[in-house]
Amino acid sequence: MNNAMPREIRLNAFTSQTPVHLSPGLWRHPRDQSRNFKSLRYWTELAQILEEGLFDGVFLADGIGINDVHGGSPDSALRHGAQVPKHDPLLLVSAMAHVTQQLGFGITATLSFEPPSLLARRFTTLDHLTKGRVGWNIVTGYYDSGAKALGRATVTAHDERYEVAEEYMDLVYALWEQSWEEGAVLGDRASGIYAQPEKVHTIHHHGKYFDLDSIHFTPPSPQRTPLLYQAGASRRGRAFAAKHAEAVFVAGPSKRVIAPIVADVRAQAEQFGRNGRDMLFFTLMTVIVGETEAAARAKHEEYQRYVSPEGVLTLFSGWTGTDFSRYPLDAPIVPAEVDSAVASMIESFTVADPGRVWTLRELIAHNGIGGRGPVIVGSPEQVADELLGWIADTDVDGFNLSYAITPESYRDFVEFVVPELQKRGAYKTAYVRGTLREKFTGGGRLLPPSHPAARFRS
Amino acid sequence: MNNAMPREIRLNAFTSQTPVHLSPGLWRHPRDQSRNFKSLRYWTELAQILEEGLFDGVFLADGIGINDVHGGSPDSALRHGAQVPKHDPLLLVSAMAHVTQQLGFGITATLSFEPPSLLARRFTTLDHLTKGRVGWNIVTGYYDSGAKALGRATVTAHDERYEVAEEYMDLVYALWEQSWEEGAVLGDRASGIYAQPEKVHTIHHHGKYFDLDSIHFTPPSPQRTPLLYQAGASRRGRAFAAKHAEAVFVAGPSKRVIAPIVADVRAQAEQFGRNGRDMLFFTLMTVIVGETEAAARAKHEEYQRYVSPEGVLTLFSGWTGTDFSRYPLDAPIVPAEVDSAVASMIESFTVADPGRVWTLRELIAHNGIGGRGPVIVGSPEQVADELLGWIADTDVDGFNLSYAITPESYRDFVEFVVPELQKRGAYKTAYVRGTLREKFTGGGRLLPPSHPAARFRS
Repeated sequence: MNNAMPREIRLNAFTSQTPVHLSPGLWRHPRDQSRNFKSLRYWTELAQILEEGLFDGVFLADGIGINDVHGGSPDSALRHGAQVPKHDPLLLVSAMAHVTQQLGFGITATLSFEPPSLLARRFTTLDHLTKGRVGWNIVTGYYDSGAKALGRATVTAHDERYEVAEEYMDLVYALWEQSWEEGAVLGDRASGIYAQPEKVHTIHHHGKYFDLDSIHFTPPSPQRTPLLYQAGASRRGRAFAAKHAEAVFVAGPSKRVIAPIVADVRAQAEQFGRNGRDMLFFTLMTVIVGETEAAARAKHEEYQRYVSPEGVLTLFSGWTGTDFSRYPLDAPIVPAEVDSAVASMIESFTVADPGRVWTLRELIAHNGIGGRGPVIVGSPEQVADELLGWIADTDVDGFNLSYAITPESYRDFVEFVVPELQKRGAYKTAYVRGTLREKFTGGGRLLPPSHPAARFRS
Repeated sequence: MNNAMPREIRLNAFTSQTPVHLSPGLWRHPRDQSRNFKSLRYWTELAQILEEGLFDGVFLADGIGINDVHGGSPDSALRHGAQVPKHDPLLLVSAMAHVTQQLGFGITATLSFEPPSLLARRFTTLDHLTKGRVGWNIVTGYYDSGAKALGRATVTAHDERYEVAEEYMDLVYALWEQSWEEGAVLGDRASGIYAQPEKVHTIHHHGKYFDLDSIHFTPPSPQRTPLLYQAGASRRGRAFAAKHAEAVFVAGPSKRVIAPIVADVRAQAEQFGRNGRDMLFFTLMTVIVGETEAAARAKHEEYQRYVSPEGVLTLFSGWTGTDFSRYPLDAPIVPAEVDSAVASMIESFTVADPGRVWTLRELIAHNGIGGRGPVIVGSPEQVADELLGWIADTDVDGFNLSYAITPESYRDFVEFVVPELQKRGAYKTAYVRGTLREKFTGGGRLLPPSHPAARFRS
């Protein structure tokens, strides 16, 4: 990427209805409002901050289940509020949409646990209410504890989850794209015809995992199919993203980790008849910014004092499936002597400094804020340099911005970084009108003909 | 009821996210805004009108499926927009809650199609966001077309649906009342303890219909269990209401139909160790009011001109399971010669005038507005007399008010009837503070010890 004019940076706020998302312990900071995640006002105010900063969207994480790996029980996650409790993000959207005009919503919903006809109805309902501002972050669910809440012993095995997901997508595409033809709803007062029955089709699906004989219960919304997000980084997850996703969420500690993932998914898209450049990539990032570098560093140090080591290890344990309560905090970690999942996590954390030997305590200090993504600390100019460097070097389109403390991290970004990016011509100065898909692609409000959903159209 | 002071009338607006709820054809009226059911602004404005009128709540109907009895296909329902399309009511609530402070929300959700752990999470999420203003209208779902959208051939048989519902209630009660002890969430900045794990309990349920081993994913909301509404009028439905419901929604054309149902459910409550007087009954009602009787009658006649006969028969067909497209419009209906479901509907419609022989066309003219409930037409004084007469003669506590056209029917009620009821001391002049349960019962925010949910408390 060597354009004279930098490409436009895309921004989502990455958050969740939970007391601790990716920065364990920071809920104790006096200015942090994480604990207000149950309050409507917290979310409407956040939405307004983001829209003031022309953010493309808010990306709402979710997961059904509780992290019970650390110490072999949910105790540590509960004690630290580490992604538990977690509330349903779909239910926040209409209020946030009411107080904004242009902000998009990336909403995580777990397909393994939701009947396709009801999930399709939910997203169509919201796409109508928001006038086309919703995206669905497609996840398959990985917590066994979630499966047990649904009466199953364990989650379906990883690769089979993606087989289920493929069939699920066919079903929701049929409901969204095929069931109601364009123009089926007349709402014509003179003739008294609300909808034309001959333009509404019953979908008949009898597959390996699902059966359905039904019309879609809701007529087409502005986007029909919500904008499709996906976040799987595994081999199977990447292929799924290459086929289905319009926006891909990636997370890693360094450009060296992220760049090949982006290149790989973009390249794979071609195999599905899609253009890899039609996908937007968002990488996980946390920014701590002040008026000067010194002010930002001081803020970072202040935040660091609130990091909870056990809370961080609880998240690590959940991500790797390895119980980190069994490892001493101060012993060096020798990759060959630990679980491969742990070795791989440590390798990904340490890729910038490959020779280094780490203790758990050092890993916590390095990754206690913002989870598996990097933390940029600096002046507005330094942050803008860093972000533009990431885009140039990894070919991502933008960032899912996590927070150290909320909403301060977002307020700071809007106050300090947004104007700097605008000065460089790398960030919009006004929203493009239209649906989230129109904003993201510059194309129409519907999925393009190259997308696999298009074959369901009559 | 011969108190000198009339008891306080309770009011809900009864509506649904659909172009035609109970008054088919009236979406064609130039002032009607039903067609805006997909728009957020329609709903936030309605919420504000209702709160201005001190309504206790908005009662949001729903049903998974489509009425395909009339003519044996969904065509007629689609053509007339007769309760199809229908959008998910849960997703409206946060926006309506954002623009109001006190209005309650009765939200219909079908337990047959929702995993208990996810439904429980949804209601807890909303009860937090609304600060305790949500109620759940428990329905089991009766459309075979809904079952087919979920991959089942038909709905479970009626009485077994209630067996399923009993087990379902045990499960959600355990999640809401037992999983998190009071005080489990500390959120204590000094100790760094967010929640106390020893006060959070895994629910183990292995029943005939459901299995679950999980904590509730969300900590207790203001009401824990949402206020429980129920609307079943069958023998089994009434027993379920007598056991579980805090508010019961009934519908019938006359006091003679409603009074014995109210008496029966209140009496049955005693068998479950509850006080029948602790339940609030809302009966379906449509009010057409003007400054004078003449103005109201003129309005009624104007509305009547928009009634769609085929739309009305489509609803009749769905309610009775009988295809009314097979009956001539102008032949007298002889109860002995029609299906028992039809005979029983006609009997219930004509109970005020038992000797009368009806044609379908006459039934449509009589019941084209407001569905199976009566329509009161008159001056503010006349309407108030009628409403108070209903309360005195049937022992209901208030009304689920349907609309002829929306939001005009609600605006008219707020402008003309509310002041008249207040003048008579039969309607509040300010909201009682607190949760929906506190407002309705005058008691605490939690279910009382006499309720079956209470035995799940540790």
